[in-house]
Amino acid sequence: MIEVGINGYGTIGKRVADAVRAQPDMEVVGVAKTRPNFEAQTAVDKDFELYAAIEDRKPQFAEAGIDLAGDVEELVEESDIVVDACPSGIGADNAEMYRKYDTPALLQGGEDADAVDASFNARSNYDTVEGDDLVRVVSCNTTGLSRLVAPLQEAYGIEKVRTTLVRRGGDPAQSGRGPINDILPNPVSLPSHHGPDVNTIFPDLNIDTLGLKVPATLMHTHSVNVTLESEPDAAEVRSLLEDERRTFVIPEWLGLDGAGAIKELAQDAGRPRADIWENCIWGESISMEGDDLYLFQAIHQESDVVPENVDAIRAVLGEASQEESMARTDEAMGLDTPLAQMQ
Amino acid sequence: MIEVGINGYGTIGKRVADAVRAQPDMEVVGVAKTRPNFEAQTAVDKDFELYAAIEDRKPQFAEAGIDLAGDVEELVEESDIVVDACPSGIGADNAEMYRKYDTPALLQGGEDADAVDASFNARSNYDTVEGDDLVRVVSCNTTGLSRLVAPLQEAYGIEKVRTTLVRRGGDPAQSGRGPINDILPNPVSLPSHHGPDVNTIFPDLNIDTLGLKVPATLMHTHSVNVTLESEPDAAEVRSLLEDERRTFVIPEWLGLDGAGAIKELAQDAGRPRADIWENCIWGESISMEGDDLYLFQAIHQESDVVPENVDAIRAVLGEASQEESMARTDEAMGLDTPLAQMQ
Repeated sequence: MIEVGINGYGTIGKRVADAVRAQPDMEVVGVAKTRPNFEAQTAVDKDFELYAAIEDRKPQFAEAGIDLAGDVEELVEESDIVVDACPSGIGADNAEMYRKYDTPALLQGGEDADAVDASFNARSNYDTVEGDDLVRVVSCNTTGLSRLVAPLQEAYGIEKVRTTLVRRGGDPAQSGRGPINDILPNPVSLPSHHGPDVNTIFPDLNIDTLGLKVPATLMHTHSVNVTLESEPDAAEVRSLLEDERRTFVIPEWLGLDGAGAIKELAQDAGRPRADIWENCIWGESISMEGDDLYLFQAIHQESDVVPENVDAIRAVLGEASQEESMARTDEAMGLDTPLAQMQ
Repeated sequence: MIEVGINGYGTIGKRVADAVRAQPDMEVVGVAKTRPNFEAQTAVDKDFELYAAIEDRKPQFAEAGIDLAGDVEELVEESDIVVDACPSGIGADNAEMYRKYDTPALLQGGEDADAVDASFNARSNYDTVEGDDLVRVVSCNTTGLSRLVAPLQEAYGIEKVRTTLVRRGGDPAQSGRGPINDILPNPVSLPSHHGPDVNTIFPDLNIDTLGLKVPATLMHTHSVNVTLESEPDAAEVRSLLEDERRTFVIPEWLGLDGAGAIKELAQDAGRPRADIWENCIWGESISMEGDDLYLFQAIHQESDVVPENVDAIRAVLGEASQEESMARTDEAMGLDTPLAQMQ
């Protein structure tokens, strides 16, 4: 069994903890949290061993009546690998601690690519990270783009990618974020950082990205253009994307017009936290105009990186091949069960 | 003096009425409205002669205490030209009435291009509509794109335009429209109708467009890519766009991060109804990556077609050259006064 520590039990950490626990070859040693709140209570209720991420705050946990198993350094020492799901920037700060205990660690996409040995996407570069000490699982948007780029590049060759990311302003629980009633170029200066981030996975890819923020919380939506090196018809591209793991090519008849409906389907399907781990690609949007492919996809910012973290654990430790790992991850999480039965 | 009738006194019609009245060579004969409401009362308060657009509804105006000057057919008969600002589809239905009185008419962008003799954008094809009976002033988004395409095509040549239109869900007063908290591909099937609509102004332009709707009401925002036939630097493109009429290239120091701030500036500047008739192009977004130009622009859906309607009146009647008309329109409306003094 792979003994996995989770440092940070927020949006990503709590989901990764559940996904790791579901794997037949992994065990959660425990989870570390900076302070007691509803998520700390959830960890306790789910029987995860809770560790204090900050020594000084231990009394706060005691006051809240939450028992601690120890502090985060003990967790790191006991683990074969740590998934660091701390807020952006903290992961890089934690690197020294992971080195101290010689425990490999996975950071999240909010960290700088420079802070790690390698960036990771299971579909695209699984085989390149074995034995690395510090690996970054790229962000939700970069994961979503990488899952598209990999099969398109293999099947048709890519001349250039141009994508506009219409981003949710904040997650549903981030009540302090905006915008309200506005459409904000973000960043205003082009191109956005997303393109260079995709280049951490595909170094030679020609890609320009633009980002905006809008008053929505449920999912990001990408308006994607890929100029291909050949001219498949749209049906062929659709079929290619349907055959991928971790893509959900939405059939027209489901009537899913946006993220609200997709989340509603995920709830009805009994998905944990109504998570949508797959790229949701509108089937009827897949179009070819000459060598230009266009499509829309929605990306669930809270969860699409979760299976990637699980695979990265095996990839770093050299515990399974790419295909074995992705299949095992998806089966254990329930990702293999489609959100809706396709015709 | 050109005697102008305005059929339809809603979002566009009321603005066109004010803009026409401000012109030194035009006079508003009157405005027609289907029913009494706050806008009908505004017309009365502004001393516009009010005509009933639907004969049967005259008693409703009497009940509301609003005096009518007659019905819409009388307005059409007395006018040299009519601006039809009725809801989409009604303009085409009215065409027969305009023909009956041999009165040329301008329809709005919601009408089919097939319903008219020609489509119009002042910057792009002013000289082509003289003597036409029925001319369509293209929609806010097509107007905004045409104002960009014309100078870029002249200066650099255009290989292809690819644009994602992040559209406001509804106008501020359209309380029944959505989405709320969602990002909707709209239309889901690509490309959107906007590209073909731009082709009514630039028949040979290679353009693909994608549209989405988001929970915002103030302005549309375009994520624009133009592959040019030459490779100017970004500063040169910026200077080109700054020198155009009806573009507002936003300097960084103004701190205008979105439509909310732009509207706030328009209010502070004393613009009527806080209207923004210009394309608002973020200066720092203007970027060149090889031969690919990128930029963001915001388009005020309620008002950018207003100066275009004024110019279309002169263009159809052959009353002024393009440059004379645009200059006269802009001076009379106050469009010549920049929203903020540039450095």
